[in-house]
Amino acid sequence: MSQPSIDVIAIGNAIVDVMSPCDDALIERLGLERGGMTLIDTEQAHALYDAMGPAREISGGSAANTLAGLAALGSNCAFIGQVADDQLGEVFAHDIRAGGIHFATAARAGDPPTARCLIFVTPDGQRTMNTFLGASQFLPAAALDESLIASARVLYLEGYLWDPEEPRAAMRRAIAAARNAGREVAFTLSDAFVISRHGDDFRALIDAGEIDILFANHVELAALTGEDDFDAGLAKLAPKVPVLVVTRSEQGAVAIKGGERSEVPAQPVAHVVDTTGAGDLFAAGFLHGHVRGRPVAECLTLGAIAAAEIISHYGARPEADLKELVAEKLG
Amino acid sequence: MSQPSIDVIAIGNAIVDVMSPCDDALIERLGLERGGMTLIDTEQAHALYDAMGPAREISGGSAANTLAGLAALGSNCAFIGQVADDQLGEVFAHDIRAGGIHFATAARAGDPPTARCLIFVTPDGQRTMNTFLGASQFLPAAALDESLIASARVLYLEGYLWDPEEPRAAMRRAIAAARNAGREVAFTLSDAFVISRHGDDFRALIDAGEIDILFANHVELAALTGEDDFDAGLAKLAPKVPVLVVTRSEQGAVAIKGGERSEVPAQPVAHVVDTTGAGDLFAAGFLHGHVRGRPVAECLTLGAIAAAEIISHYGARPEADLKELVAEKLG
Repeated sequence: MSQPSIDVIAIGNAIVDVMSPCDDALIERLGLERGGMTLIDTEQAHALYDAMGPAREISGGSAANTLAGLAALGSNCAFIGQVADDQLGEVFAHDIRAGGIHFATAARAGDPPTARCLIFVTPDGQRTMNTFLGASQFLPAAALDESLIASARVLYLEGYLWDPEEPRAAMRRAIAAARNAGREVAFTLSDAFVISRHGDDFRALIDAGEIDILFANHVELAALTGEDDFDAGLAKLAPKVPVLVVTRSEQGAVAIKGGERSEVPAQPVAHVVDTTGAGDLFAAGFLHGHVRGRPVAECLTLGAIAAAEIISHYGARPEADLKELVAEKLG
Repeated sequence: MSQPSIDVIAIGNAIVDVMSPCDDALIERLGLERGGMTLIDTEQAHALYDAMGPAREISGGSAANTLAGLAALGSNCAFIGQVADDQLGEVFAHDIRAGGIHFATAARAGDPPTARCLIFVTPDGQRTMNTFLGASQFLPAAALDESLIASARVLYLEGYLWDPEEPRAAMRRAIAAARNAGREVAFTLSDAFVISRHGDDFRALIDAGEIDILFANHVELAALTGEDDFDAGLAKLAPKVPVLVVTRSEQGAVAIKGGERSEVPAQPVAHVVDTTGAGDLFAAGFLHGHVRGRPVAECLTLGAIAAAEIISHYGARPEADLKELVAEKLG
């Protein structure tokens, strides 16, 4: 087996975030699920955009955000995801490539347009996401570069993309390609609503030993295991995956690897501006340490540093020099 | 004459800013004019975008930024400007309307696309702007709503838009409509390069008494008057316009009205992130006071407060609650 040329290859939604600060009253008036992620159709997208204040556009997408963090930390990355042949597609493609990430999925002609996520950010920094999946849900299995997948240390998949049929088939094929090449498969559960729809698939993948590194937050852990108690959930899930990483907002994060439990507190943040991307960037920091063979405790710390940076500003792509930040914090 | 229903109506470029932090070495390598504004064509726009790091998109355009500030302060505003019928055009239209500004110019079908400005922001907060004018330069005189112009206290025009032929003709017609209705005409010189191309037009407008309120920075003052000395420039220009407002970055600003000179220091800013929009927001604060009949010294202070807010973050549209900020600072 040749030395992997790529550290992490990811398959995910190719989304541009449309972000606007708002007050709690607007969330209530619009009947949005505060802090959650909701899929919306074209009509809802127009109605919500009309109700939204002046916004800014920043590339997003869960796995793509994770890669942006990994690349900023110095990892070699590739992304597979579907944009449309339109201006937002150009924005997404520009931003991911400008971050030094290999991205060669051809833009899709015609409707629907590139995916966007309308994100309302309340004064406490909480984000309420409304995703119009657009072109993103039409990623065909044919878009996979299986030799590239086979050449990467880790294949990283986002649970969000399990919902639409075509990308789900593509991800199953990618898992097979990675495993056949002896690579690791990392998976993030993404959101409780995805688990409510596809929990059986996820549990089957885990039971079959297809997942080497599993990322979840405490809500997703409970949803997947059916255990409301955090430690009970961990005890149920940990024996089934080689590495389990569970974040719990301001309470830090826990990882269990080979039966050994490590914990890290959240890094202090002077002012939480926008929590969009916190989990994505935690995964970035953790994976960056993991592919370098660092101890689990250090991987967790890297995750906490990257997550703290992302919640201190708008948008889920790093603004500060993450390498410098890590050098400062880890000494 | 009926009571004006609109405080300020502006005609300007309808631009989406594409902003990215960069180091000084990149500015040099790309041969950009640091701190300046350069017009670029399609080919240059592609080449510069390729060279740019990951970016964010925030609606811009000089006069549109000024209106966003005015509206945030509580003024009633309308905008006239040309977007294309594309995604960036939707973004621009959304953001300006979401700011509470009346905007009814129909989007233009077909090529060229909506204008964008590629802005490289160096670590000192200085912005280097490269503008692809796209649809913006095709604003037809037919797009003017002359009765709306006649109904506004102040018509505000940006010098940038004097360059392309169609909008120049539209602006001349707008000036006539405003003056016939007994309204004030405010004009910003925008940039020294515009003066180098159209200084004769501007001097002729001023000499003919068509401009009631003139905004400039110290560089533009020198370019227009041919006087390198700041006070000599002021002395030459002030007698020709009822209100002259000249900003000079961290040295604050000066206004001369009816021969009386007022000055204001720059407001303290903890960390200058991005100077894009500083002049635009200074004009917003000043005009907000002006249309309310406030003393010139207070208009200058309002300008300084709005400018200080805008340079403390990325983008030329206000993020903080300007009304609250003003209440805090003015007591």
